[in-house]
Amino acid sequence: MEKQKDNRHWKVKLHEIIYEADTPNGKLFDIILIFAIIASIILVMLESVESFDKEYHNFLNISEWIITILFTIEYLARIISIKKPSTYIFSFYGVIDLLATIPKYLSLIFVGTHALIALRALRLLRVFRILKLTRYLGASKTLAESLKASRIKIAVFLFVVVLLTIILGTIMYLIEGPKNGFTSIPYSMYWAIVTLTTVGYGDISPHTPMGQFIASIVMILGYGIIAIPTGIVTSEMAKTDKKVHTNTQHCKNCGADMHLDNAAYCNKCGLKL
Amino acid sequence: MEKQKDNRHWKVKLHEIIYEADTPNGKLFDIILIFAIIASIILVMLESVESFDKEYHNFLNISEWIITILFTIEYLARIISIKKPSTYIFSFYGVIDLLATIPKYLSLIFVGTHALIALRALRLLRVFRILKLTRYLGASKTLAESLKASRIKIAVFLFVVVLLTIILGTIMYLIEGPKNGFTSIPYSMYWAIVTLTTVGYGDISPHTPMGQFIASIVMILGYGIIAIPTGIVTSEMAKTDKKVHTNTQHCKNCGADMHLDNAAYCNKCGLKL
Amino acid sequence: MEKQKDNRHWKVKLHEIIYEADTPNGKLFDIILIFAIIASIILVMLESVESFDKEYHNFLNISEWIITILFTIEYLARIISIKKPSTYIFSFYGVIDLLATIPKYLSLIFVGTHALIALRALRLLRVFRILKLTRYLGASKTLAESLKASRIKIAVFLFVVVLLTIILGTIMYLIEGPKNGFTSIPYSMYWAIVTLTTVGYGDISPHTPMGQFIASIVMILGYGIIAIPTGIVTSEMAKTDKKVHTNTQHCKNCGADMHLDNAAYCNKCGLKL
Amino acid sequence: MEKQKDNRHWKVKLHEIIYEADTPNGKLFDIILIFAIIASIILVMLESVESFDKEYHNFLNISEWIITILFTIEYLARIISIKKPSTYIFSFYGVIDLLATIPKYLSLIFVGTHALIALRALRLLRVFRILKLTRYLGASKTLAESLKASRIKIAVFLFVVVLLTIILGTIMYLIEGPKNGFTSIPYSMYWAIVTLTTVGYGDISPHTPMGQFIASIVMILGYGIIAIPTGIVTSEMAKTDKKVHTNTQHCKNCGADMHLDNAAYCNKCGLKL
Repeated sequence: MEKQKDNRHWKVKLHEIIYEADTPNGKLFDIILIFAIIASIILVMLESVESFDKEYHNFLNISEWIITILFTIEYLARIISIKKPSTYIFSFYGVIDLLATIPKYLSLIFVGTHALIALRALRLLRVFRILKLTRYLGASKTLAESLKASRIKIAVFLFVVVLLTIILGTIMYLIEGPKNGFTSIPYSMYWAIVTLTTVGYGDISPHTPMGQFIASIVMILGYGIIAIPTGIVTSEMAKTDKKVHTNTQHCKNCGADMHLDNAAYCNKCGLKL
Repeated sequence: MEKQKDNRHWKVKLHEIIYEADTPNGKLFDIILIFAIIASIILVMLESVESFDKEYHNFLNISEWIITILFTIEYLARIISIKKPSTYIFSFYGVIDLLATIPKYLSLIFVGTHALIALRALRLLRVFRILKLTRYLGASKTLAESLKASRIKIAVFLFVVVLLTIILGTIMYLIEGPKNGFTSIPYSMYWAIVTLTTVGYGDISPHTPMGQFIASIVMILGYGIIAIPTGIVTSEMAKTDKKVHTNTQHCKNCGADMHLDNAAYCNKCGLKL
Repeated sequence: MEKQKDNRHWKVKLHEIIYEADTPNGKLFDIILIFAIIASIILVMLESVESFDKEYHNFLNISEWIITILFTIEYLARIISIKKPSTYIFSFYGVIDLLATIPKYLSLIFVGTHALIALRALRLLRVFRILKLTRYLGASKTLAESLKASRIKIAVFLFVVVLLTIILGTIMYLIEGPKNGFTSIPYSMYWAIVTLTTVGYGDISPHTPMGQFIASIVMILGYGIIAIPTGIVTSEMAKTDKKVHTNTQHCKNCGADMHLDNAAYCNKCGLKL
Repeated sequence: MEKQKDNRHWKVKLHEIIYEADTPNGKLFDIILIFAIIASIILVMLESVESFDKEYHNFLNISEWIITILFTIEYLARIISIKKPSTYIFSFYGVIDLLATIPKYLSLIFVGTHALIALRALRLLRVFRILKLTRYLGASKTLAESLKASRIKIAVFLFVVVLLTIILGTIMYLIEGPKNGFTSIPYSMYWAIVTLTTVGYGDISPHTPMGQFIASIVMILGYGIIAIPTGIVTSEMAKTDKKVHTNTQHCKNCGADMHLDNAAYCNKCGLKL
């Protein structure tokens, strides 16, 4: 019984460390974990650099194993320390944690499978869990809000862009044709997007005077078009900011809030503020 | 007479299905049609991809025929089911529907004419008819409004851009000259637009130090210039948004305006609105 | 004496036609002139297109002569019809008109001088005179105003950009060096501008990982930087717009205008509005 | 004693000239110095232009020595004329002045060391000291303010961009792979930034249809993303501008705020402010 109690106590402590960030140990755990994640991501990147991989293959391999083992321990710990493991295992982060842990093991089975990198890249998603973005939440919320508020405008905008892309793509395909690099309509549409967004790789560019003339119009069009999302987001933000600007005084009588800064009377019940 | 009545009834039903979207059949018809249109557009695209066309030529050909026949039936149905066919036939959409239907038939006469793709691309325009953009109308109206409101500013802006393009084009043509790829003034103007809009393909770029110096100025100019349409659209949107957000009702007592949409009392003198 | 009078009358009529746009003849004259100018500009462009010039050399040559003669007549007419010719001849437009007229004559002396194109391009400036931009003045004034109002901000901004360009140019020159195309600091500065402005020709781009890393930072920097002129212009425009928004009611007592929309009392003399 | 006094007097005068800009001599000194600095920077640039360096090596060398000596004298003068030299020597500008002076001397020791250019480029930083940006301070402060006010939003924004870059970089590396130029994840990330920022060098661009499809999405994404910093900065500026434009004095009587800067009476209750 003593043991049992002790045991529970040990589990509780573990749970506290892993799932909470308030205790010094919890903080420490989070910090170690975040470094482990960042390290694991950097490892994936470095491994993709052939020259580097050649030279330091063993180093990469070993440190990859270390990370994997660390993650394994953490994963098991999370399962043990929680009351209903299933809730964790089948939670969003539970799945990600698993996926983030197994690649190295899988690499033993499917030797040198390229795609495992993708799986390992998933570790990135783990960052979100740890970063307690409370401080940033406010800001990101404003961003999200203004995006949400203008989602319909954005939808219309995207619809117009897609339509424009198809039309321009077809036109340029007909004008320039395969001999000038516009080998197909989809590829011409790719060109149209590259141009409208003012990215302009230059991997395809019009060669016929007519094509260049239309391209010029497309670019100037892109000018205006690029102004629209900016306009949308900006004016939305300005609004959300303004919302913040209307004072938050509550009416003593009806408790209504959201009065204009210069309101002298409650605009709900007419009581003098 | 019975038949006549029955016949009319059948026509009315057909009209209901084709021209209205309220009945379940009408909705179904619209959905089938929209998929047919999207399919037809995708077919045009795929056919333009040579490698794909080679492999699946028959498939493309057959499905193209199916679409064409579908459109033909629809077109005839539209003519039959309407009271005054002429009104439909010579309407904007009537013409588009016809143009969208005939290409495949024409391809039997003018074998392998490239330009027919353009005709088939017109099918895209049919999308507009079906998409009942009521939900989006509000948003698109705000967009349209703010564009309309600032059309003069935009005109001035475009005029300036064109003028700038001609001047810059001429200058660069004189500085860089044909030996550096600026083969003619129109082509240099094309370069000027490519640069001002920050697209920058790189198919032509200045090679002489002097040319690069001027190009640098042009780019920084483009910086500012790209700010202007954004500024125009944004400030317009902000205005249109404001218009929408605070109603313009005046207080009978103190004549104060600018009340929140949900204001029940004047926020100046407290009188009930 | 009769003659003298008649003569004056003829001059006055000519003056009316040339210098005023109110009479139908005046309007007609302006329209002809504007077409002549546009034609002359198009001629310069076409002439610069070698292939076109080869084929239609005579056509271009003749039409160029026609334009030149037209301009000559107009120039002389302007001198004759005005009271004090000197005032016109040495006026800004007077000089431009002359410069716009002589190139073809000069081409007889200095055969095939390339630079004459520049002179002919000056004809463009003539457009300004004719276009009576009254309708657009309002809009362009708002643009000009908002630019003027933010000229200091823009100056600071440009100063920062230049400084940034020099610093980045030097850094990249040291990192990439001539072997990677960054042959000199000025050229690296050219690259920096090409990158900061998001033009990105790709005629020079970093090849070393370190260089690419810094380039990435520069680009993200450019992100923010491109936001600043937009921000400046937009907020300025919003202000100028707002200025229009403060109501224009004048105080009966002190005649002060520019009251806030929600002002109940004159903010100059305190009289109830 | 006389001498001592005289001596001090001489030092005071020197101090006045060097450290103050109010006296005509002080102004003159500043102007000379700023020209010397700009000259020195231009020299560094010209020297980096090989062709120029070849031809005018001696000229560059001599003028470089002149600048260096000028700076040496100034540096010593600054030390002599100040009461506690240490305070100057170890100050930020003191160190920069030293670093800006020594390169040429060092070049005698380490012959033809490339890196010295970097040291000489530091001279640029000296500009800041001299430019008394008082006039511009206001404007730059507004800029700084609006940036500071939105620093959290910017942080979130940058975090999102970095995350997006890593994810996109990995995806494109997997899709395109080394054979299409996406040789590694870091390099693919470089591509992602080049694309998101709409710079688009074209040194790497997707070759597979799938890759081009994703690239297109990335670009349209970049569209929206580029709108966010603009939105942030703009709305911030609009706010800071507003803050500046209507003073925050409250009416003693009715406590109304938001009066125009030139308001003499409360626009709510008409009381003299």
